[in-house]
Amino acid sequence: MGKILEIDLSDRTYRVTPIDENIARKYLGGKGYALWILYQDLKKLERKGIAPRDIDPFGPENTLIFATGPATGTSFPNGGRYHVMALKSPLTGGIASANSGGEFGPYLKFAGYDMIVIRGKSDTPVYITIIDGEVAIHDATDLWGKNVFDTIRILKDKHGNHDASVACIGPAGENLVHIACIMNDEHRAAGRTGVGAIMGSKKLKAIYVRGTQKPPIAKLEEFKEKVSKYLKVMKENSVTGEGLPKYGTAILVNIINGIGSLPYKNWQGAYSPEADKISGETLEQKYLIKRRPCWGCPIACGRVTKVESGPYQILYSEGPEYESIWALGQDTGVMNLEAIIKANHYCDEFGIDTISMGSTIAAAMELVEKGLIPEEDLQGLDLRFGNAAALVEAVWRTAYKSGFGKYLALGSKRLTEIYGAPELSMSVKGLEMPAYDPRGVKGIGLNYATANRGGCHVTGYTISPEVLGIPEQLDRLSYEGKAKWVKIFQDFTCAVNSAVVCLFNTFALGADAYADMLSSITGWNLTADDILKIGERIYNLERYIMSKYGFSSKDDVLPKRLLHEPLPDGPSKGQVVDPEQFKKMLEEYYKLRGWVDGVPTPEKLKELEIEV
Amino acid sequence: MGKILEIDLSDRTYRVTPIDENIARKYLGGKGYALWILYQDLKKLERKGIAPRDIDPFGPENTLIFATGPATGTSFPNGGRYHVMALKSPLTGGIASANSGGEFGPYLKFAGYDMIVIRGKSDTPVYITIIDGEVAIHDATDLWGKNVFDTIRILKDKHGNHDASVACIGPAGENLVHIACIMNDEHRAAGRTGVGAIMGSKKLKAIYVRGTQKPPIAKLEEFKEKVSKYLKVMKENSVTGEGLPKYGTAILVNIINGIGSLPYKNWQGAYSPEADKISGETLEQKYLIKRRPCWGCPIACGRVTKVESGPYQILYSEGPEYESIWALGQDTGVMNLEAIIKANHYCDEFGIDTISMGSTIAAAMELVEKGLIPEEDLQGLDLRFGNAAALVEAVWRTAYKSGFGKYLALGSKRLTEIYGAPELSMSVKGLEMPAYDPRGVKGIGLNYATANRGGCHVTGYTISPEVLGIPEQLDRLSYEGKAKWVKIFQDFTCAVNSAVVCLFNTFALGADAYADMLSSITGWNLTADDILKIGERIYNLERYIMSKYGFSSKDDVLPKRLLHEPLPDGPSKGQVVDPEQFKKMLEEYYKLRGWVDGVPTPEKLKELEIEV
Repeated sequence: MGKILEIDLSDRTYRVTPIDENIARKYLGGKGYALWILYQDLKKLERKGIAPRDIDPFGPENTLIFATGPATGTSFPNGGRYHVMALKSPLTGGIASANSGGEFGPYLKFAGYDMIVIRGKSDTPVYITIIDGEVAIHDATDLWGKNVFDTIRILKDKHGNHDASVACIGPAGENLVHIACIMNDEHRAAGRTGVGAIMGSKKLKAIYVRGTQKPPIAKLEEFKEKVSKYLKVMKENSVTGEGLPKYGTAILVNIINGIGSLPYKNWQGAYSPEADKISGETLEQKYLIKRRPCWGCPIACGRVTKVESGPYQILYSEGPEYESIWALGQDTGVMNLEAIIKANHYCDEFGIDTISMGSTIAAAMELVEKGLIPEEDLQGLDLRFGNAAALVEAVWRTAYKSGFGKYLALGSKRLTEIYGAPELSMSVKGLEMPAYDPRGVKGIGLNYATANRGGCHVTGYTISPEVLGIPEQLDRLSYEGKAKWVKIFQDFTCAVNSAVVCLFNTFALGADAYADMLSSITGWNLTADDILKIGERIYNLERYIMSKYGFSSKDDVLPKRLLHEPLPDGPSKGQVVDPEQFKKMLEEYYKLRGWVDGVPTPEKLKELEIEV
Repeated sequence: MGKILEIDLSDRTYRVTPIDENIARKYLGGKGYALWILYQDLKKLERKGIAPRDIDPFGPENTLIFATGPATGTSFPNGGRYHVMALKSPLTGGIASANSGGEFGPYLKFAGYDMIVIRGKSDTPVYITIIDGEVAIHDATDLWGKNVFDTIRILKDKHGNHDASVACIGPAGENLVHIACIMNDEHRAAGRTGVGAIMGSKKLKAIYVRGTQKPPIAKLEEFKEKVSKYLKVMKENSVTGEGLPKYGTAILVNIINGIGSLPYKNWQGAYSPEADKISGETLEQKYLIKRRPCWGCPIACGRVTKVESGPYQILYSEGPEYESIWALGQDTGVMNLEAIIKANHYCDEFGIDTISMGSTIAAAMELVEKGLIPEEDLQGLDLRFGNAAALVEAVWRTAYKSGFGKYLALGSKRLTEIYGAPELSMSVKGLEMPAYDPRGVKGIGLNYATANRGGCHVTGYTISPEVLGIPEQLDRLSYEGKAKWVKIFQDFTCAVNSAVVCLFNTFALGADAYADMLSSITGWNLTADDILKIGERIYNLERYIMSKYGFSSKDDVLPKRLLHEPLPDGPSKGQVVDPEQFKKMLEEYYKLRGWVDGVPTPEKLKELEIEV
């Protein structure tokens, strides 16, 4: 069992506590265990008289957790990730949750800790070093204002480059941009729900980790054999063995546009005849230098890219991922891959979530199209759909809240509210939805509506069965039986994020494979059902906490556009999310979940052994 | 006689003192009177044991002054300016001095004060309002980080729009960028010697002024008649009546390139066959929307411009001026007026001196050309000569010190020192030289070398006789007799900046006209000789203070390139500043000045009634 590092930035103290095996058996690690800790903090706040609804995302009462799990840093395939959780997101007002690859997760474990719990807030900028178990809190005044690349370089130059990793915020996080993310290893992002702004509010610039400690594995030889077996399965799988390695996640651009479900111009459509201009294939042909895998990853979907010349040149960058290409490109109507690469680079440099950034710009462009933004607010920025120059400029402006950037920094929900057209925010619970239009893929819509963190694809990635045919091919336009799939994917993903490994291995590996390998790591005797039960427990505790913030079925909704504006063209032309059918799916889902009005019943909580 | 507002930001107190007529008779107002105040402060610091050399430009001991003069805000032609002075420049280590148009100068006077003297420094951001004599110091926490346009708009919305003006810093000044300027009225800049960074170090974000008080005029009717007469003279003058109104200052691009003296690619040449692409004529034809005059100006050289589309689009901007076009364009090899307009816009938005910005980028480009900057420092920015995209990006990066911007923020002298090639900084005393190559115009070189604030054209604008033939045509390639012209122009300009009015009226008006109108304003009986004597006194006191900082003849030099690298092409091909001839000019100049080793003698100081 590992250890938890708990740091209070208000008085700059810390303590180390062991992982509690009882909690680990119920919540595994990573997201699940972090959630349990958050819930204990929430109860403490309630006892102090601070109501959950009154928790200030930027207050010292917000707890921020960096979590690995039992599989992170082991040879479990794709064990190179970490999960970030916080009590409250500045973007959604709900739980904050994000996940990132690179090297930070495993290196945190090698440095001696499974998790870092950050409480309180510092008055002045600080950073933390954790080197082989040794913890230190340093002044970061000179780092404040530095971009992500500078921050990482300076800390590695100072504290050692070898097998070290830095998670940090850029200017966006410092400036409390609501869509700021936490970055690590240059171009890797714990992107969503504004976790970077939370870190910024605590004046915590960075965490540097390095160490030589090995993650404990109960049955090492058995584990090694199992890993070999599953790595072979992954290699033989067409997605994990071929598609993702060759084209990266951007392979999805042509696939999803090809079914008319790649949202276009702030979801006014979901198809563009020009999508190939910004596809993974084009990226691979024109801009790819090499691949860069996360730690211990056999897939290596990461792209190292370059735009040689022209107005959007950048001589070294990474990405962009599928979601980023869509949000910054097709969703803004900018079908210019060079501009997208540049905009994506700025998102990484300054620490901004690409999905929320692109979507917020797209919302602004529709506001401009409708004449709802006064000229003086724009300060000469020509935010028209398809305008590559304005896209790129809008990104760094957001990081620094300069000119119109100060409005973009609020995310699409608040932005569109300010200009009197909240229906133009393509978000759920304030979190901008990703690159799959539910009008063309019905199940993912139910997932967006019910995902605890808001409009999110990796809460329950039903695209896998609905489009890719994994583990079996469903009819993407049917509503039938989708509720069950959404629930299973949501539960399983909770387990994946608590393991903590990369969701991409699940294209090849199921809950049985997870149970098999995790049993060898932990020494417990886990079944596939146990894995799904753990996931369900986590999902219910998360939902229960959300209910304490006031979230309920009224928030399990989709933007009106999806229900009432049929897709105007492309392979899914004429499709909407039928309001009645959606309602039916949702009711079925609640029933499967054992929820009433979108909230777990006491019986359900008891059944899942969640002590509230 | 007017009043001086003295504010101590350390304890947030202020007091009002009257203008001392004895001092005013000796130093007029504006720059001269401010210099006298600075010298009193310097003596106080010496008595406290702080040596002039040890004054920290960012310390509370640096005094910052906003000064108008007797002619500012009157109908004296072009009375719409103010002068900024400070004890020490972060860029040069010498006296800081800068001058700006717009409306701030007159409105400060209408608000009740001739000058504002800022001492000490605040711990937290503040701004000052002066409304009809009433002074208040406000918290500016919410303004900190805001760009120039936002800052001005917010303060005018809050304190009144009508006949109000705001001088402020942008992010560059806040971030202590050494080439930051003070901005007013959106696009007007007190540009040089880093005065914006001084204001930033004091945490003074802005000064808002408004009022209805009238500048005193001793003989009003007489003054009115004289003004009518001299306005007619200006109207009939080809420069002030025609060239500047129609094409703005950018009319000089083709003129100076046409004599092969418009420095190209960090002064590796001084001619480009493409210069017309970035000329005032092209600006007028393609990008000009309208003219915007400063307060009370019959010339209206200010340009309101727009780049409709493309990567450098900006739907509303002002400028760029001749110097900015040169520095951001020809000097960087970017012969792209759209990119120059955009880069100039960013300089205004973030508060950066365009001359120093362009020149520092040009120096960086030559460092890159020579392979002296490691790739990792550039973070993918392709700083090649002629690269429009890199130029534009480099500007906002400088304001925020992001990526390579943190090096550019130091100015060209420190930048080139860092990379081991100080000879590539085209500066004098650390201040980047403007848009006239002394290899093709010999007298201006002597002015650059001897200008107290460093490489500056508006200290003694001998381009007027050497190129434009005003008041008489000199041979631009001759060294003969130039020392005398330099001295006269430097002295007269000190009087202009103490009046405080715009130097541009001097294309039409001489010291006699100044004496004539200033006599009516003050009620004194001033002659042209008096005006020049006042100017000489000011110049000598400034030089004397510089000597206390350690400046002497060793600093009255030009970059080696100008003396040893003949111009490679163009109408001045083969020309250098001949080292022997330069030395001779300098010696003649010192003799005319009564200086030994570049420093005024005690006899000279006594003769000028400067009490040291």
